[in-house]
Amino acid sequence: MKNFISVNDVADIDALVAKALDFKANPLTSQALGSNKRIGLLFLNPSMRTRLSTQIAAENLGMKVIVFNVGQDGWALEFEDEAIMSGNTVEHVKDAAPIMGKYFDVLGIRTFPSLQNKVDDYSELYINQFIKYAGIPVLSLESATLHPLQSLTDIITIRETFREKRKPKIVLTWAPHVKALPQCVANSFSQWINAWGESDFVITHPEDYELDEKFTKGASIELDQKKALKDADFVYVKNWSTYTDYGRIYCNDPSWMLTNDKLQLTNNAKVMHCLPVRRNVELSDEILDGANSVVTRQASNRVWAAQAVLHELLTNKLQ
Amino acid sequence: MKNFISVNDVADIDALVAKALDFKANPLTSQALGSNKRIGLLFLNPSMRTRLSTQIAAENLGMKVIVFNVGQDGWALEFEDEAIMSGNTVEHVKDAAPIMGKYFDVLGIRTFPSLQNKVDDYSELYINQFIKYAGIPVLSLESATLHPLQSLTDIITIRETFREKRKPKIVLTWAPHVKALPQCVANSFSQWINAWGESDFVITHPEDYELDEKFTKGASIELDQKKALKDADFVYVKNWSTYTDYGRIYCNDPSWMLTNDKLQLTNNAKVMHCLPVRRNVELSDEILDGANSVVTRQASNRVWAAQAVLHELLTNKLQ
Amino acid sequence: MKNFISVNDVADIDALVAKALDFKANPLTSQALGSNKRIGLLFLNPSMRTRLSTQIAAENLGMKVIVFNVGQDGWALEFEDEAIMSGNTVEHVKDAAPIMGKYFDVLGIRTFPSLQNKVDDYSELYINQFIKYAGIPVLSLESATLHPLQSLTDIITIRETFREKRKPKIVLTWAPHVKALPQCVANSFSQWINAWGESDFVITHPEDYELDEKFTKGASIELDQKKALKDADFVYVKNWSTYTDYGRIYCNDPSWMLTNDKLQLTNNAKVMHCLPVRRNVELSDEILDGANSVVTRQASNRVWAAQAVLHELLTNKLQ
Repeated sequence: MKNFISVNDVADIDALVAKALDFKANPLTSQALGSNKRIGLLFLNPSMRTRLSTQIAAENLGMKVIVFNVGQDGWALEFEDEAIMSGNTVEHVKDAAPIMGKYFDVLGIRTFPSLQNKVDDYSELYINQFIKYAGIPVLSLESATLHPLQSLTDIITIRETFREKRKPKIVLTWAPHVKALPQCVANSFSQWINAWGESDFVITHPEDYELDEKFTKGASIELDQKKALKDADFVYVKNWSTYTDYGRIYCNDPSWMLTNDKLQLTNNAKVMHCLPVRRNVELSDEILDGANSVVTRQASNRVWAAQAVLHELLTNKLQ
Repeated sequence: MKNFISVNDVADIDALVAKALDFKANPLTSQALGSNKRIGLLFLNPSMRTRLSTQIAAENLGMKVIVFNVGQDGWALEFEDEAIMSGNTVEHVKDAAPIMGKYFDVLGIRTFPSLQNKVDDYSELYINQFIKYAGIPVLSLESATLHPLQSLTDIITIRETFREKRKPKIVLTWAPHVKALPQCVANSFSQWINAWGESDFVITHPEDYELDEKFTKGASIELDQKKALKDADFVYVKNWSTYTDYGRIYCNDPSWMLTNDKLQLTNNAKVMHCLPVRRNVELSDEILDGANSVVTRQASNRVWAAQAVLHELLTNKLQ
Repeated sequence: MKNFISVNDVADIDALVAKALDFKANPLTSQALGSNKRIGLLFLNPSMRTRLSTQIAAENLGMKVIVFNVGQDGWALEFEDEAIMSGNTVEHVKDAAPIMGKYFDVLGIRTFPSLQNKVDDYSELYINQFIKYAGIPVLSLESATLHPLQSLTDIITIRETFREKRKPKIVLTWAPHVKALPQCVANSFSQWINAWGESDFVITHPEDYELDEKFTKGASIELDQKKALKDADFVYVKNWSTYTDYGRIYCNDPSWMLTNDKLQLTNNAKVMHCLPVRRNVELSDEILDGANSVVTRQASNRVWAAQAVLHELLTNKLQ
C-alpha cells in the first residue's frame, strides 16, 4: 500500500480487517516496525476520534507522532497552482509538502470539503497536492469526499459482530441534521461495502439526496425508509447534504430519525454511526443508549483500523 | 483511589503528601507502573501549570500522554441529558466519554464554572458526567467548584517549609482582581486544610464574599484582614467572586492587597498563591519578589502532587 | 553555549556547522545525552518549520518535548516590570519563567516583534526577560529582531552545496510582500554571514529599506539589484519592512521579485528563502520550481541546526 486515500488502495479488504483484529488482540506486537519512524498528523479541520485513534495506533507501532493544526499552529495553506499569493494564504502546498516529506516517514492529512464548489471538492485537490509533493506515504484522515479509515473501521465492526454464515443485509440511511455536512462518510461507506461485496447493501434517503454513483454503484437505492429497513442486520445512520445541487439542505424531516419503532422492522439490527452524532436530531437517545447501538465499539475500533493501515504503509515503505 | 475529584477521594492525606515528596526526591522510580498506559488530558479551558505538570508527572511514571483541547482541536460537547442537539454543541458527553474510556487508561479533565448558574456549577455536572460515562479513573484538572491537585500541592508545600512541632497558623485571604473568578481554589484549599486538621485555619474576606459552608466548616472566619493575619505562618492569597449572590464582584478595594507592611503582622509568614497572579492588583511586586514568597516552589510541586495521585489511580486500577 | 539567541553565543561557527552535518549523517548517535531531559517549546506566535524541526531535533537527542502555545493553550503574558496588571495580560513573565525553569531543562521561545515600537522590539525585552527569570538555557525560536536557528541552517546549506575553494559571493535581496514583516531573518542572516567571514557578502534593497547597521556592518550595500546579483553564487530572497521609519511598507515594486531572467546575471546561483514564501509575490514559481532553488534543503536542514545547538546547550549544562 503506497497511500491510503480510498478503498482502491487496498489489495485485500478481508486481509486488512484480519490484520486489524489481530492488533486488537495484541496491540504491541509490531513495535519494532515503527521504531525511529515518525508520522505527522496535519489537521486543516477539527477531529477527535481520528486524532486520538491514529496517534495511539502509531504509538502502538513504536512510531513517534507530531500533531499539527494547520492554520492554527502554523500558516494557512494555498493549494492552487500558479496562484499569485497576495491574499490570505501564507504558504503553498508545493513548498510545505516536500518539507513534511523530509521531516516525516508518513503523513496523515484531514481536509474537509468547502461544500461550495462540487468540481473542486470532488477533484480532491488538497489531498492530491499533498500526495504529489510530499514524496512519502499519505494517509487520509478524511478528505473532501471520502473517509476511508472510518469505512475500514465499519467493516471491522460488522465482521466482529455478525457471526452468521449468510451475507448480512446492511442499510445506509440518511438522517436529519441542522448543518450542511459533507458526503464523505456516506460515499466512503458505500464504496467500501460495494468493493467488499459480502453483503446485501441498500441505501435509503429522501428524494434529491442521491450520492455520487461512482461510489454507490452496486447498492440498491430505496427511497422508502421503512421498506429499506426491513430485515436489516445493520443500519448505518448518517446525515449528508445534497450532492447533485451541491451542499444544500433540502429536507430536515424529523420522521427520518431512527427510533425503536423503526428498529422493529429490522432483524434486530445493530445500529452504527461514525460520531459525532447530534442526539435527538440525527439519532434518538433510545437507540444510542439501547442494546443495539455499536457506536462505541465502532469508535474504539478506529485504533485497530489505523494500526493495520499504518502497518501496511510502513511495510511497503521498507520493501 | 478510584477517581480524584476532591479530598474525599483521599484515604490518608499525609501518606499522599509523603508519596509526593518521595517522587520529588526520586522522580523516575515508578516508570514501570505506567508503561504501556496512556492518559488523556482534556481541556475545556486554558491551563499552563496544570497542563505541563500533569504531563510531566505522567511521563515520569512511564505513561504516554495525549493533550486534547476540547472545542478547539475537536467538537463542543453537550452535557445535558435528553438534550435535543440542534444548537451549537456537536457531541454529547454520553458518546464522547465512553470512547475516551476505550482510548485511555486515565482521563484528566479541566472544566471551569460558568459563574452564571450556581446550582448547575455546584452540581459539578460536567466532571460527574465524565465519571458516569468514561468507565476509567477520572482526574480533576480543576472543575467547576474545586481544584484538588492545587490543594494537595499546597499542603505538600506547607509540609516542606514548616519544620516546627506545633500546628501552623494558616490564613486564606481574599484579594482584589479585575475579573470575576471561580471559587475553586479557595473552596478546595479550605476543604483540604479542614480535612487535614493539622493547622489553625482562618479565612478572611470582605463582607458578602463568604464561601460555601460545605467547604469552609471548621475554619474561623474573620472579616478584619489585619486581625486575621496576626501571627500567621502561611498566608494564602486568592481572589474569588461572590458565592451567595453568585459570580459577582462587589468589592475591589485595593487595601485588601497583601503588602510588606501587612506581612509585618504575621510570624514572618510564607506567602502562597496558585498562580497565575495579577501583579500589583492581587499581590504586590514586593511580596512576590521578596523572600517570603513560595509561589514558584508551589508551582513546581504541582508535578509531584500529580505524580502521587496518578500513582494511586494506576495502583488502584491494577488491583 | 549557555543560551542560543544570536551568533554571539557561538564560539566556532564552522565547528557548529560540522556538528550539524554529522547529525545529518547519523541522527541518533547522541540519544543518551538528552535521555530524561525535557524541552519546553513556547510559541507566542505561529510556526511550522521551527516547531516541527526543533521537536524532531530534541527527540533525536533522546529528549522529551512539550509544545505550548502561550495565550492559546494558556494565559497571555506580561513583560513590563512593575506593571499594574489590570488589563488583558494574566501572568507576568517573572512568575511564569521560573516555573518553566523548574519543569524543563531547556526552554525554546518564539516571540515576534510588534513592529509598532522599534526601541521595545530592538531591546529584545521578551526573550531577555525569559533568560533573566527562567534559570535554564534559553533557545530562540525567532525573537523580535533575530532568527539564529534559521541563519545557522542557512550556513549549513551554503557549506553543503558550495564545494569550491574560493569564497562564495552571497547576495541578500529584499523582495516584495503584501504585509509588513519583521527584519529578523535578514538581520540574523547578515549578522551570521558577517561573523562567519567566509564570503563576499552583498545586501540589496530599495531605498529606505536599510537594516540596522549593527547587523549589516561588513557587508556591501548595493541599491541596484541587478548590479548586486552579478556573479552571485547564492541569492537569499527575503522581504522585510522598513527599519529606520519603523515597520512600514514603502515599496512594493514587483520588479524586485527574482525571476529566471535576473538569475542569468548570477553565477548559476542557488536561490535561498527561509519560508513561508508568497509565491509570485516574493518569489516566482519558475525560480521555486526550478533547479536552482534550495529552499526544501534549507528547511530540512533546520532539524540538524537545532540538533547541533541543543547538543551544545545540553553538553554545557552537564559541565
